[in-house]
Amino acid sequence: MRTAICERFGVEFPLFAFSHCRDVVAAVTNAGGMGVLGAIAYSPRQLDAELNWIDERVGGRPYGVDVLVPGGVDASAADRSARLLDFIPERHRDFVTYLFGKYGVNLPEPFTGAMSVYADEVGRRVTAEGATGLVDVALKHPIGLIASALGPPPPEMAAKAREAGVAVAALVGTVEHARRQVAAGADVIVAQGSEAGGHTGEISTMVLVPQVVDAVDVPVLAAGGIACGRQAAAALALGAEGVWCGSVWLTTEEAETLPSVKRKMLAATSSDTVRSRSRTGKPARQLRSAWTEEWDGAQESPGPLPMPLQMLLAEGAMARIGRAADSGDPGAGELVTYFVGQVVGQMNRVRPARQVVYDMIEEFAVAVERLEAVTGGGTQPHRPPSS
Amino acid sequence: MRTAICERFGVEFPLFAFSHCRDVVAAVTNAGGMGVLGAIAYSPRQLDAELNWIDERVGGRPYGVDVLVPGGVDASAADRSARLLDFIPERHRDFVTYLFGKYGVNLPEPFTGAMSVYADEVGRRVTAEGATGLVDVALKHPIGLIASALGPPPPEMAAKAREAGVAVAALVGTVEHARRQVAAGADVIVAQGSEAGGHTGEISTMVLVPQVVDAVDVPVLAAGGIACGRQAAAALALGAEGVWCGSVWLTTEEAETLPSVKRKMLAATSSDTVRSRSRTGKPARQLRSAWTEEWDGAQESPGPLPMPLQMLLAEGAMARIGRAADSGDPGAGELVTYFVGQVVGQMNRVRPARQVVYDMIEEFAVAVERLEAVTGGGTQPHRPPSS
Repeated sequence: MRTAICERFGVEFPLFAFSHCRDVVAAVTNAGGMGVLGAIAYSPRQLDAELNWIDERVGGRPYGVDVLVPGGVDASAADRSARLLDFIPERHRDFVTYLFGKYGVNLPEPFTGAMSVYADEVGRRVTAEGATGLVDVALKHPIGLIASALGPPPPEMAAKAREAGVAVAALVGTVEHARRQVAAGADVIVAQGSEAGGHTGEISTMVLVPQVVDAVDVPVLAAGGIACGRQAAAALALGAEGVWCGSVWLTTEEAETLPSVKRKMLAATSSDTVRSRSRTGKPARQLRSAWTEEWDGAQESPGPLPMPLQMLLAEGAMARIGRAADSGDPGAGELVTYFVGQVVGQMNRVRPARQVVYDMIEEFAVAVERLEAVTGGGTQPHRPPSS
Repeated sequence: MRTAICERFGVEFPLFAFSHCRDVVAAVTNAGGMGVLGAIAYSPRQLDAELNWIDERVGGRPYGVDVLVPGGVDASAADRSARLLDFIPERHRDFVTYLFGKYGVNLPEPFTGAMSVYADEVGRRVTAEGATGLVDVALKHPIGLIASALGPPPPEMAAKAREAGVAVAALVGTVEHARRQVAAGADVIVAQGSEAGGHTGEISTMVLVPQVVDAVDVPVLAAGGIACGRQAAAALALGAEGVWCGSVWLTTEEAETLPSVKRKMLAATSSDTVRSRSRTGKPARQLRSAWTEEWDGAQESPGPLPMPLQMLLAEGAMARIGRAADSGDPGAGELVTYFVGQVVGQMNRVRPARQVVYDMIEEFAVAVERLEAVTGGGTQPHRPPSS
């Protein structure tokens, strides 16, 4: 295929696959797309190991790395003199304990309120300083792209990437954010609609993409609502140069998705997601579950904390909930959730990641052929003699 | 163009234009699409006059009529022994009076709580009985389509249409509703995404359309987020046989949109709409305004009533607010709102309705040509030797 994105990144099909799983990243890159590893799950040392693993498998084919640099992070995250966990109020920990009790979740140990002794380090990965540390590691590998979700890339990060000849992509949910990101040095804009999984805005992909394409002079990838070839063809019809997919990999063979979550995703319809602050502190689309319902609706709920505090609290609780759900605990099964977009309604069977790519390419071709056939009769407007 | 929809309805471009304005309906039909008149604004006698006006102008070209038959209407609407207005609680009327006071809206007369002496008749148009009365009138005209929003068409309505050789279309927001509508006799499904104006569900067009196309064996129109040719091409790439547009006509030359609302729409971005129950009692996307903010968020708000009671209360208030806003009352300008989809961000200039059609057809052709050019290099997946 020939789009600006294919030429720039040397990919054969302009499909960017966001995943926290190195197997998915390598599989998509090897199938002709571009895998993008979500780095936020790793320490700098772990990230280095993951990227070495990928390097050994993709034979120089293009891949990228994604970091999270939100604007408006709680000030506590930048205060290195304090323990982040100390900023989580008692009533928020108590609400989690209450939920464990209400849903009868058996815990191997009492819940102390956050994920681990590494909480401080993890919480700080979403600051400019933390993200830049991950980027330093990534730039030692032959990556083609650094993507920045949530906020404009810090100037230092953009400068380092440019020096290394690595493109910077930025995820946006509005036209205004797209303009700001390009002004801050983004080389590629990922216009992400409200139907996407994870952190997302309120404007749908169908509405957002053409407006972003018209507003900026860099290539645009469409994200949100794209899990099959017809949707990829629609994205290109809207003016995008390629697509960015995250959810669809979560039910692949390679995915490290918890078995309990994978089962929920395979059974879910497109009505079973919700945009909720209950997982990270910022609105993020995920499976609707007792966790999201209780935080967002229960009278007892203290309401979510700002990022990254809610993230620490939720991830700590969810790690335990996930283990319990995987062992068959029914209450934990009600609570467990994970980020996913509305395309979860299409994710009804487990495929290898490369098969997802091949299926998408094949369906894309059929969709374009259908459009050609439909317009074979011409698209000239009828102008009545009187007009 | 050649789609199942073009052949079935004898249109040259598969564009369905929903409008309450007869001028828009006739203009779109005469430009090669299919105008669909929203009948809910009219009494049976008024509707007859509107359709006569259209018949005289379209020279036998195809057009349709849309009625509203919601499920779950408040029982009061079917109780003919009572005045509907009597079911509107005192505190809801009081809240409207409070809003008028808070925003300093000058009223020519005191607000009595609903639109007019015709409130009963208007409120009952959204019942099966009322809608069927409108359909009886419509079937005396050479219409090609009856569309039913919100609920399955009552069996009597479907039977009458079938007898007259008129197709029945049904708007849906989920796959499950699409299946139910086809079982109830719908000939065409309009799969409407959450970004649409008016009554809408939560699933986006990009996600909904392919799933509905796969689930039913009747032609599918895509609705929601479609106001230009790229979006129409995307809809067809998703598998739709045509598109259904409502919002884009509201800022056309012909539209009867209030000047104060038209100005707001021309200035609005795609972030300026909200899905709110405050206008009809069911979730409907519209311009975010002080009216929606106060009903949905103010501590004093009693919360919206069920349909049709909220509709009567809101329309009565909004008629007065609209007149005041058009006379330059700033408080009324803050309150005034109308149904519109997220595409309002693209509606930045006033065009004749037929020009909207011509522009859409032209941009559609360009989008398809671009897709052809992009795939000129082939879309065969790369299969590494090892796989």
